[in-house]
Amino acid sequence: MTFDLIRSLRQGEPWILMEQAASQVNWRQRNAVKKPGVMRLGSLQAVARGANGILFFQWRQSRAGAEKFHSAMLPHAGTESRTWREVQALGRELPRLNALLEGRAEAQVAILMDWHNWWALELDSKPSNDLKLLPGLRAWHRALYRRNIPVDFAHPESDLSRYRLVIAPHLYLVSDAAAANLSAWVERGGVLLMDYFSGIVDPNEQIRPGSYPAPFRGLLGLEIEEFVPYSPEGRNSVLTADGRRFETRFWADVIHLRGAEALARFEQDYFAGSAAVTRNAYSQGSAYYLGAELEPAGLEWLLERALAEAEVQPVLAGLPEGVEAQRRAASAREWLFLLNHNAASARVRLPVGGRDLLSGQAVGGEIELPAGGAAVIETVIDRSRP
Amino acid sequence: MTFDLIRSLRQGEPWILMEQAASQVNWRQRNAVKKPGVMRLGSLQAVARGANGILFFQWRQSRAGAEKFHSAMLPHAGTESRTWREVQALGRELPRLNALLEGRAEAQVAILMDWHNWWALELDSKPSNDLKLLPGLRAWHRALYRRNIPVDFAHPESDLSRYRLVIAPHLYLVSDAAAANLSAWVERGGVLLMDYFSGIVDPNEQIRPGSYPAPFRGLLGLEIEEFVPYSPEGRNSVLTADGRRFETRFWADVIHLRGAEALARFEQDYFAGSAAVTRNAYSQGSAYYLGAELEPAGLEWLLERALAEAEVQPVLAGLPEGVEAQRRAASAREWLFLLNHNAASARVRLPVGGRDLLSGQAVGGEIELPAGGAAVIETVIDRSRP
Amino acid sequence: MTFDLIRSLRQGEPWILMEQAASQVNWRQRNAVKKPGVMRLGSLQAVARGANGILFFQWRQSRAGAEKFHSAMLPHAGTESRTWREVQALGRELPRLNALLEGRAEAQVAILMDWHNWWALELDSKPSNDLKLLPGLRAWHRALYRRNIPVDFAHPESDLSRYRLVIAPHLYLVSDAAAANLSAWVERGGVLLMDYFSGIVDPNEQIRPGSYPAPFRGLLGLEIEEFVPYSPEGRNSVLTADGRRFETRFWADVIHLRGAEALARFEQDYFAGSAAVTRNAYSQGSAYYLGAELEPAGLEWLLERALAEAEVQPVLAGLPEGVEAQRRAASAREWLFLLNHNAASARVRLPVGGRDLLSGQAVGGEIELPAGGAAVIETVIDRSRP
Repeated sequence: MTFDLIRSLRQGEPWILMEQAASQVNWRQRNAVKKPGVMRLGSLQAVARGANGILFFQWRQSRAGAEKFHSAMLPHAGTESRTWREVQALGRELPRLNALLEGRAEAQVAILMDWHNWWALELDSKPSNDLKLLPGLRAWHRALYRRNIPVDFAHPESDLSRYRLVIAPHLYLVSDAAAANLSAWVERGGVLLMDYFSGIVDPNEQIRPGSYPAPFRGLLGLEIEEFVPYSPEGRNSVLTADGRRFETRFWADVIHLRGAEALARFEQDYFAGSAAVTRNAYSQGSAYYLGAELEPAGLEWLLERALAEAEVQPVLAGLPEGVEAQRRAASAREWLFLLNHNAASARVRLPVGGRDLLSGQAVGGEIELPAGGAAVIETVIDRSRP
Repeated sequence: MTFDLIRSLRQGEPWILMEQAASQVNWRQRNAVKKPGVMRLGSLQAVARGANGILFFQWRQSRAGAEKFHSAMLPHAGTESRTWREVQALGRELPRLNALLEGRAEAQVAILMDWHNWWALELDSKPSNDLKLLPGLRAWHRALYRRNIPVDFAHPESDLSRYRLVIAPHLYLVSDAAAANLSAWVERGGVLLMDYFSGIVDPNEQIRPGSYPAPFRGLLGLEIEEFVPYSPEGRNSVLTADGRRFETRFWADVIHLRGAEALARFEQDYFAGSAAVTRNAYSQGSAYYLGAELEPAGLEWLLERALAEAEVQPVLAGLPEGVEAQRRAASAREWLFLLNHNAASARVRLPVGGRDLLSGQAVGGEIELPAGGAAVIETVIDRSRP
Repeated sequence: MTFDLIRSLRQGEPWILMEQAASQVNWRQRNAVKKPGVMRLGSLQAVARGANGILFFQWRQSRAGAEKFHSAMLPHAGTESRTWREVQALGRELPRLNALLEGRAEAQVAILMDWHNWWALELDSKPSNDLKLLPGLRAWHRALYRRNIPVDFAHPESDLSRYRLVIAPHLYLVSDAAAANLSAWVERGGVLLMDYFSGIVDPNEQIRPGSYPAPFRGLLGLEIEEFVPYSPEGRNSVLTADGRRFETRFWADVIHLRGAEALARFEQDYFAGSAAVTRNAYSQGSAYYLGAELEPAGLEWLLERALAEAEVQPVLAGLPEGVEAQRRAASAREWLFLLNHNAASARVRLPVGGRDLLSGQAVGGEIELPAGGAAVIETVIDRSRP
């Protein structure tokens, strides 16, 4: 997620991983080592997400000072060490990827991220001070990552025209320009998925008057009368229109429909029967709203529905759990990254043949990735692919 | 309990609830809403306990600043909201109670509360720094509240002549005047119930010399040799003279009887067999002492005994669990409050007939209160009632 | 352990227990009392470990101030109290021990303790900031205490010639003089038991260059490539050369043998099969190394082996659990302390007869100690004892 965020800060321009640790850091309470192969896979993960350089902090492990137990390319143990050997091997391997430096990592999905919103959301005296932004970002990103669906992060005022699906987690603070931008993008066919405590304040952190969420009431086709934060033990549940039941916790919106359809309704509390998840057809697009903290299976259910409507495809479907696929693409070629994070080997059926830049071998049909193994397969771009 | 404390600060004079929240506050970690009907019941609870005015913070929910998520009579959502409707309904209802403004809430039981004692008790370097005053006050108040027995809070030096039972929780700091006041009140027939770590220091927080509790040794008919604070896991138990066994924790006094009878004795530790709960007949009254932290069932057992000796009666006996009864009385009339805190309706048999000021109906025999419902029944005072 | 440490600070010179509490202290969150007999046993424990004086804080319990709930020889309750009676009894008993004031408590085992190491070890930015010195000291001391094996604490640069076994827990910071001292002592026949994160920095807290642990590589016959701190949930296990399996947690060293033999090897993680516990024959002595945090049973297993090689004997073997034996010795006499910490009586077979200074009785063969009881048996020294 961090790699995707960093790439997105300059709209997909290539970037450099300035300082990574060869193994352990020194600033945690307990500083775990990176086990064999983990540093290499992490480096390739960065390249797959647009990095054109992989650098380390620090060359030689210090003898003195606060960072002397931070790992380095050359550890205290010297050159007779796995860390040194892994750094050397990576150094030999990276030049084989020179051809892909022109390639860009591209995404059809964006998650909205605005630092001003982050800061405002986490000021105190909120309905629930336990509402933080990053857990929401991570939950959506994790669900997309597990599907091998590339993700950008985007500012709410930025050009969203390249995306099919935009997710807006807890977009509490929103400018007039951002509100107009989102509505216009949905009008032109975008699929928006917004969740609770969005559209509440302006950039001066003043409540936007009229019932919540003032700038998105028309877009979402609903009004929210009040927020119901729950205690840590508090629970509710929702029943979906297609007959599934999911537990919710932490938060509930009391929603009045103003044109949206209810995809799921609360089952408990004084607002039982009112909508918890909604969808509003809006011009050529549509806007989903999630007014509760759904259990992970519920998040998957909602995301599947929005992905299907937006016709978003993964890099590669049907991969074994723990095998990551990412793609960089240039005008005439593209590079498929396959990273096996499992402790066992995995077989992957390739959509087209090509050449694995890491092994130098031609590959096609099916490829076997050893435990912790990786391939970077160069192919000619098939422009007929959607 | 807070309402009873506030009323007691001016010896039962009518008081005003200055700022209540129409729904959620904004200064908790998670700010729960007041569910439908809860604000009304709470308002009537205040009136039942002597309030002659119910005011709110704030009129209109703020747009900006730290209190913008504090509830208000008029919420962000505007007049199309249950909060506004509940505030309106209360405003329409309260004038029906104008007749009872002259009435006073009266009690036969007092819990002693002295801020100087509170501050001194919670200074550090104590036998157990986990001994706090409020949990003790709450435990006694809760047991009385559940019995629908009205309670005042009283300063230890104040006139106690109107009370039949006085409870002294952890009265660690006590002035000479207060000690003399309590003894004189028991002499004249009062029933005192004192618990551990009482009578230890004077108003300068200096130990009262002689064995503990120096100013109450004669009144209680005992001496305490030492305090035995327990670790969080530590337990003891007591066996009562009438054959019941209760668990104790947190604290034990090593008691030597000097005239008191033992109502219960410890069963474990090096002082097993010594008294844990005592009663001392003292002139026309009696003084109970509790030298341990009893489990709730044990507290009930002891309170029942003291209430019976003091001949204290509840406002109304035999009420269903969760139905609260309180009374305000004037020279010629009295008002019986019945508040149903349950999520189901409840039937209450009335001692005498009257008129429900809330519904405007004559009532008698048995009345049914809906879930969350209330009645305020005006009757002519029967001065033959004890 | 504290008594052993204090005695060791002046190399076994007699010392005085300056301030002990007659019962509870006042500076804990919950200040437990010393139950009957505990103060006496603790006092004799100090004498057994070299104390020639037992003093109290405070004579008379204060009436005012922060220490008024600290116990005293004369408590608030006055002379009619068990505390006063126990203090009196101790005062009558101690003069019977006057003869042993010339005796010294002696040990064949030392645990290394250097305040500079302690301070440096617990600075932050370590592989695991949860590594603290005292838990390690306590674990080794407890295992020796339970065996009734006397222990000194020694500075790493001090004369170790009187010891057969030296334990070095987490000797992270070590001076050149200390490193040379330890090696020379092993050369002359000493048995050293060192555990993880030892020999890492010099007195300026600068890494000692070369692979870990630079000053002890030759002595231990190994090199450590890297440290593997575990999360609180992390576990590994070791299988010993004699077929036993122990769980480890918290820490693992990745060890390369350079002459040492592996006494136990790790079973999990990427370094499975590498040594976790080693022994290196070194000139006339030997050096054990423990590169993991072993469960208590594993610590016992390793300690037994090192004690056997060093031919260290307990004060008295075969004692019931909870009976402590210590010895003070002078040129012509010695005094055997037997302290029964159990709540039940215990029988002890004596190696030789003598006179119990506490009871004044001649004893021999077998002696029965009541619950919480003690004996101090004076005998003529048998110089043929090893």
